[in-house]
Amino acid sequence: MNLYQDLYQFFKNENHVSQKLNILLDHSKDQSSYHPSHLPEVVVFPENKVDVIKILKYANENKIPVVPFGLGTSVEGQVIPIEGGISMNMTRMNKITELQPDNFLVKVEPGVTRVQLNDSLKEHLLHFPIDPAIDASIGGMVSTNASGTNSVRYGSMKDQVLGMQIILANGEELNVGGQYLKSSSGYNLTNLFVGSEATLGVFTEITLRVYNIPKYKLTALVEFTDLISASNAVVNMKKRDLSIERVELIDERTIEAINRYKSRNFSIAPYLFLELGGNEDIVHHDYELAKEILIEEGCLNIQLATNDLERENLWEIRHEVAFAIKSLNPEKKLMTTDVCVPLTVLPNAIKETRKIMDHSNIECAILGHVGDGNFHAVFSVDPENKSEVGLYKKINEQIVDYALKNGGTCSGEHGIGLGKIEYMYKQHGNSVSYMRQIKSLFDPNNIMNPSKIFKK
Amino acid sequence: MNLYQDLYQFFKNENHVSQKLNILLDHSKDQSSYHPSHLPEVVVFPENKVDVIKILKYANENKIPVVPFGLGTSVEGQVIPIEGGISMNMTRMNKITELQPDNFLVKVEPGVTRVQLNDSLKEHLLHFPIDPAIDASIGGMVSTNASGTNSVRYGSMKDQVLGMQIILANGEELNVGGQYLKSSSGYNLTNLFVGSEATLGVFTEITLRVYNIPKYKLTALVEFTDLISASNAVVNMKKRDLSIERVELIDERTIEAINRYKSRNFSIAPYLFLELGGNEDIVHHDYELAKEILIEEGCLNIQLATNDLERENLWEIRHEVAFAIKSLNPEKKLMTTDVCVPLTVLPNAIKETRKIMDHSNIECAILGHVGDGNFHAVFSVDPENKSEVGLYKKINEQIVDYALKNGGTCSGEHGIGLGKIEYMYKQHGNSVSYMRQIKSLFDPNNIMNPSKIFKK
Repeated sequence: MNLYQDLYQFFKNENHVSQKLNILLDHSKDQSSYHPSHLPEVVVFPENKVDVIKILKYANENKIPVVPFGLGTSVEGQVIPIEGGISMNMTRMNKITELQPDNFLVKVEPGVTRVQLNDSLKEHLLHFPIDPAIDASIGGMVSTNASGTNSVRYGSMKDQVLGMQIILANGEELNVGGQYLKSSSGYNLTNLFVGSEATLGVFTEITLRVYNIPKYKLTALVEFTDLISASNAVVNMKKRDLSIERVELIDERTIEAINRYKSRNFSIAPYLFLELGGNEDIVHHDYELAKEILIEEGCLNIQLATNDLERENLWEIRHEVAFAIKSLNPEKKLMTTDVCVPLTVLPNAIKETRKIMDHSNIECAILGHVGDGNFHAVFSVDPENKSEVGLYKKINEQIVDYALKNGGTCSGEHGIGLGKIEYMYKQHGNSVSYMRQIKSLFDPNNIMNPSKIFKK
Repeated sequence: MNLYQDLYQFFKNENHVSQKLNILLDHSKDQSSYHPSHLPEVVVFPENKVDVIKILKYANENKIPVVPFGLGTSVEGQVIPIEGGISMNMTRMNKITELQPDNFLVKVEPGVTRVQLNDSLKEHLLHFPIDPAIDASIGGMVSTNASGTNSVRYGSMKDQVLGMQIILANGEELNVGGQYLKSSSGYNLTNLFVGSEATLGVFTEITLRVYNIPKYKLTALVEFTDLISASNAVVNMKKRDLSIERVELIDERTIEAINRYKSRNFSIAPYLFLELGGNEDIVHHDYELAKEILIEEGCLNIQLATNDLERENLWEIRHEVAFAIKSLNPEKKLMTTDVCVPLTVLPNAIKETRKIMDHSNIECAILGHVGDGNFHAVFSVDPENKSEVGLYKKINEQIVDYALKNGGTCSGEHGIGLGKIEYMYKQHGNSVSYMRQIKSLFDPNNIMNPSKIFKK
């Protein structure tokens, strides 16, 4: 068997199948870059469902691993073809196949990116709000149940996916969900596939909810004395049902790193980045209530963005936090971990994380999607340095353990991939064996993204 | 084997196990009353998780069917013990085990009812919004993925359940989900169990999201010339992101039945029941926008409830629609079918349903949860009259077929139970065999609510 030759026979076109080293290299790693890379044997570029079926049938018969690849933005090693085999590049399946503005839904192929989708939605005054900071393919975002800064308002991918067309390992087509907003017909397979990290099948079409673009936005940078009061302010704003689009927390050491990196002179304190969105009158109304709450909780200063440029500048600070940390050790790789805990646990979880980092003398940014209890710790690591990697693993474990002990999950939005397999077992106990059996139902030969999520 | 004796041995208490005829009869039917009733052999009343484990282990070893029973409010025959065996009455497991107002979550046993839960939440200014009209146990509502008039704002049960403790058929305890608002850790088993109609296991604790009680509500009865413009008005209100708590549609023939039943003199026309909720200023602001839209879409009249009593009176009309139909044939049983379609399909689906009813000379109420494309047709049938039952089945099939052909689902909120098994196969095709295999993973002896959802 020659994998390249066999796949080539399907397409008779070099453009569909590649073993060029630069292309193999592009498909050997993900955004994280600290998970060890691994070359696929071959990269295929399906253009439609029929291509996907052909490739999967062949791979399944010959027990060859298949790893779908979008923009490669996973951070827990999800797209790394750790067992070689086929990397299936989905980026040519990038058509928006149907847009139904009045039904607030859109059908897309998996290679459509969220930026591309939002460009198409704009003229209908609609948007797809899930925003994991960088651009990403919709297929990839479904795979990890991605979310991001907007999830306080819109939820995560599982709340957006109404239906999917999926090709299973044996080439069988499965259609789950549909175009309806709710259903009580049979088991919810749609949400079983969302977040399954490409271990159950290949998505070939995804039906998503879309939303009105908020007509007006108001963004503020709010300085606090301490994490607890910043966090309490968020709980209290949620209790008043304010129209929060995003609310992000960074701690004082993170703002220190920003000051150094961007030559700014923010007071060293925890900050909330708060954005309200909706009808202009309502946003102003809600802002007055928000101000009351923020002041009541002892905020020191509110800096309001009064126009689009100022708003972008504020969010730029939030988005450059990771680079600020990276700049301290430009030769190292950026490492990130993410957990999600109940809202009231968040401030202490962040404090604990800072303590762990301080104990190991590690410069680290802490970013909290504080409206839903999810936060990230971002720091630098040299993947070649074994003792550093060991230390990182210990730190990661401590952060996850704190979350699990306090009602949390080992990953809020990045997923399990290669990086969090042992924590998933810790979190779910005997449930994991049922997950594994479900995997075997849909993929008995274990060709779909093998060695991910589950222990070997 | 003597089932009663064996179960009695576990408890040594007559209060826990019963074969009294009146109790068996109470557990032989559901709310629908047109699905044929069937007696269980015995009714057990577990008081805690340990009881549930004992009963299930015994039942599993002896391959005895088990059907959990809450308030018996299912309408597709879900709680009918069609194969005899054990009816497991969950109403003594009715404790609210934990309330975390600042985390917007609550943990309840499955026998807690939504009314009981809301009574406990009130003092914290919180509520659990899912409202399937009558009172129901939370366990039952999870089983069918219930929703109701508020789902346009809050979604269905699947959007409320954060985690569950489940006892599987073999007595094994499974803990799915947790107390976090989002997670990317492993397969989403939580949403697999929500809507599984007690075919996969017995829920012993459920963690739910709760919400702020809207501070202010404004309710209006809006008269239209036709269904299409009423429906367009709803789409346009959704496009303006108005703070809609509920929006319900009834057609002209339904209001005619109301007029007769309640001796009212509403104009014969389709009506929207619209409720806005939130901060008072915002509700008034949104009402002005709503009025513009309603008038633009040609509404004929808006009758505003100006106080709580008037609001209750308006909703009473909506809730009494079914009784208005029943009053025409008081000796018959009320039959209801429910489908969900894309928003823009709804007016034509309702028209088609009315046409089908007229064709058969059947008086029927049509109630639409028009904000999410879900509607019910309610009419009377004599379950003993075979030709009437045959006609009902034909009508049900026509309504479902129209929904399935137009991107809909065969049930929006009532579930499959005994009544919609064949439509589930029509809707999901080859997916059903995977659902069945999942059922076998969790319940290999098929003791959990057998003969429901799936064909024998």
